[in-house]
Amino acid sequence: MAMAASPHSLLLKNPNRPSNSFFLRTPNTTLSLPSTNGFFFTPSRLNKPLSITCATQVQDRSTTTMPTQSRDRVFNFAAGPAILPESVLKKAESELYIWRDSGMSVMEMSHRGKDFLSIIQKAESDLRTLLNISSEYAVLFLQGGATTQFAGIPLNLCKPEDPADFVVTGSWGDKAFKEAQKYCKPSVIWSGKSEKYTKIPSFDALEQNPGAKYLHICANETIHGVEFKNYPTPNNKDGILIADMSSNFCSKPVDVSKFGVIYAGAQKNVGPSGVTIVIIRKDLIGNAQGITPVMLDFKIHAENNSLYNTPPCYGIYMCGLVFEDLLEQGGLQEVEKKNMKKAEILYNTIDESNGFYRCPVDKSVRSLMNVPFTLEKPDLESEFIKKAAEEKMVQLKGHRSVGGMRASIYNAMPLAGVEKLVAFMKDFQARHG
Amino acid sequence: MAMAASPHSLLLKNPNRPSNSFFLRTPNTTLSLPSTNGFFFTPSRLNKPLSITCATQVQDRSTTTMPTQSRDRVFNFAAGPAILPESVLKKAESELYIWRDSGMSVMEMSHRGKDFLSIIQKAESDLRTLLNISSEYAVLFLQGGATTQFAGIPLNLCKPEDPADFVVTGSWGDKAFKEAQKYCKPSVIWSGKSEKYTKIPSFDALEQNPGAKYLHICANETIHGVEFKNYPTPNNKDGILIADMSSNFCSKPVDVSKFGVIYAGAQKNVGPSGVTIVIIRKDLIGNAQGITPVMLDFKIHAENNSLYNTPPCYGIYMCGLVFEDLLEQGGLQEVEKKNMKKAEILYNTIDESNGFYRCPVDKSVRSLMNVPFTLEKPDLESEFIKKAAEEKMVQLKGHRSVGGMRASIYNAMPLAGVEKLVAFMKDFQARHG
Repeated sequence: MAMAASPHSLLLKNPNRPSNSFFLRTPNTTLSLPSTNGFFFTPSRLNKPLSITCATQVQDRSTTTMPTQSRDRVFNFAAGPAILPESVLKKAESELYIWRDSGMSVMEMSHRGKDFLSIIQKAESDLRTLLNISSEYAVLFLQGGATTQFAGIPLNLCKPEDPADFVVTGSWGDKAFKEAQKYCKPSVIWSGKSEKYTKIPSFDALEQNPGAKYLHICANETIHGVEFKNYPTPNNKDGILIADMSSNFCSKPVDVSKFGVIYAGAQKNVGPSGVTIVIIRKDLIGNAQGITPVMLDFKIHAENNSLYNTPPCYGIYMCGLVFEDLLEQGGLQEVEKKNMKKAEILYNTIDESNGFYRCPVDKSVRSLMNVPFTLEKPDLESEFIKKAAEEKMVQLKGHRSVGGMRASIYNAMPLAGVEKLVAFMKDFQARHG
Repeated sequence: MAMAASPHSLLLKNPNRPSNSFFLRTPNTTLSLPSTNGFFFTPSRLNKPLSITCATQVQDRSTTTMPTQSRDRVFNFAAGPAILPESVLKKAESELYIWRDSGMSVMEMSHRGKDFLSIIQKAESDLRTLLNISSEYAVLFLQGGATTQFAGIPLNLCKPEDPADFVVTGSWGDKAFKEAQKYCKPSVIWSGKSEKYTKIPSFDALEQNPGAKYLHICANETIHGVEFKNYPTPNNKDGILIADMSSNFCSKPVDVSKFGVIYAGAQKNVGPSGVTIVIIRKDLIGNAQGITPVMLDFKIHAENNSLYNTPPCYGIYMCGLVFEDLLEQGGLQEVEKKNMKKAEILYNTIDESNGFYRCPVDKSVRSLMNVPFTLEKPDLESEFIKKAAEEKMVQLKGHRSVGGMRASIYNAMPLAGVEKLVAFMKDFQARHG
């Protein structure tokens, strides 16, 4: 059994053991070895040296911020669940079977044992650092997605007769409004529907209800690609602004102190599906309606540090790995810079295509995360998606409700992925334009 | 860099690639290699042969059904999240980074893409095979644990004035009853509380309310170790029996047709935390109260095949791997035999200890899954737990509400783990008896 590597082999510096550890990956083998002499693994004491063919050699993070595409990985432009950082997946792979000295997988740990407690506490602490969250806010790791919070927010913050204001800039804001109708008296004070959700209103023009319990926005509309670049000042009696940040959570710095509640499904930027993060000002906790299911009561979860019942432990662990990775990148200001660069080259390609590609969203509110676009010739769309998939760029089909294409370019999408996409787009235009 | 293995090295046959693949595991390295010559990896072309010390050599499943303890793994007696099959963890490890030819991790897959659809459909199909679930029942993969269903069941099945009967045989049945008080008029028709939840009533003695919408039981009380061995016949107008089976789900065959709803958190016998399985007779779907959060409405989830919003994809994938493993073991009849054997030797050790160990539960209803016991001399309990942990048997502390010890011996606990525990118990008794 020789250890000759195939042309698909890949020598990776292990980003989680930066000093002296590497992975050798081929289609059939995985080898994680400590190195004794720096970057390269030298099989000096083996008679037959390893033949290593590097499809891609990932450079040190200090010299380049994004890994390029592994030979056997695709660039995944899905809207969520979505691409995760390769380094995070490698870390998870390396400790899936046994986590540190625990003798077990994270998936097997009691949620009340010291090992898991260290995991969830570190995840919360790192998230607090990333978003500079003060002690006036509780951070909860819950289940059920943002859709569960569409009920949870009004159930916890409103009495049945309370008004609440909704700015609806896309399908998700609309869903939040409709669910709230069961538990309070919500009003849509602005809707972008008649303009196919391509705009965000001028905040001065918003006619807020002074008696509203809160003002609700969806900070980034995943389907329509519309993103708030700043935030309206709530004009309601308690000054509460609430945001669904599912699809741009941790993609840029946010002044949490402007919000009463921020909530987000993890499966776009910070982890796998199955974890929902709620950041809530503590004084807003404790007023749930009597009909609130115990699992939707923020007071229960805050008092029990998200451990009232069994939380989604493995998902929280994965979020923790992503938070560590974001901190290692230099925090959210650095992450935002990368996201702006990626979005810039993609939108520029669309805008400079002389109409071959079109993005319907107002330039001032285009999302850094989800880039919807259409083709001037719609009958080429299926060809575009098919050819892109052949080039290992997948999940580019637009949401069924809007059609066309959508490239989701979350934190974990490397610049190289977007560069490859725009090169493909230009080539496709040259062939079909 | 020589590849000399440490004394902790372990040569494992990869149970997921039975014909020709092995893992070499040491504290610092993981090597997965195809073998060209049968069971043993022969480094014939390496100048310095590998020194491999086998702590445990796992035998083929055809000759023994249980792997023994890996050198670096503990026996984990936690009540949930709990031990998972080693073969399942190895399979998950091997495809965490890239699943098959998808080019991505399962954690990154769109829940509407063909790859994940194949995963969830296979999981449902295998579960239907395991429990012989007819097409009259929907199988839903949800979030939020059984605690969410404590609200979901009455919200979906009752009007606010409807009575419902609860047999309360432990803490979880009591929690289900209390949550139902928000949404209907539940009654406790029998409670084991005064006898410290050590019994299950005679079914003849139950005074069921003929007008009740359903009769609710907790099939296995995780904290108290009390398990229904058969089931009461509902005497209510619709003949509906409902069971929380969280902690004995898929531990033995169950006649699903006797139930209106079976629900279970996955994190005991079938997967990681974060997945809740609901098996519901289809004619009971579609009558949710108006105040039901959309995420608790069975109709929404049934109509959308559990994909109304993003499901806990990775957890569902893990459950699917467990279902495959249970089928490979020969199905739930075979699994039950193993569970009976494990429980038998543990209860026998307790009962034959002349009172050194005591299990308070009625012999006829002792759980095959959760075995609570106390010491005649309670001041030895912390010593017992400490010494067991030194022997790599962990999480034996009883629930904080009942004290003493508890050994949870779910499907994935090998017979060797229980054998090691009883040997330890006998030795401990000999030292301290």
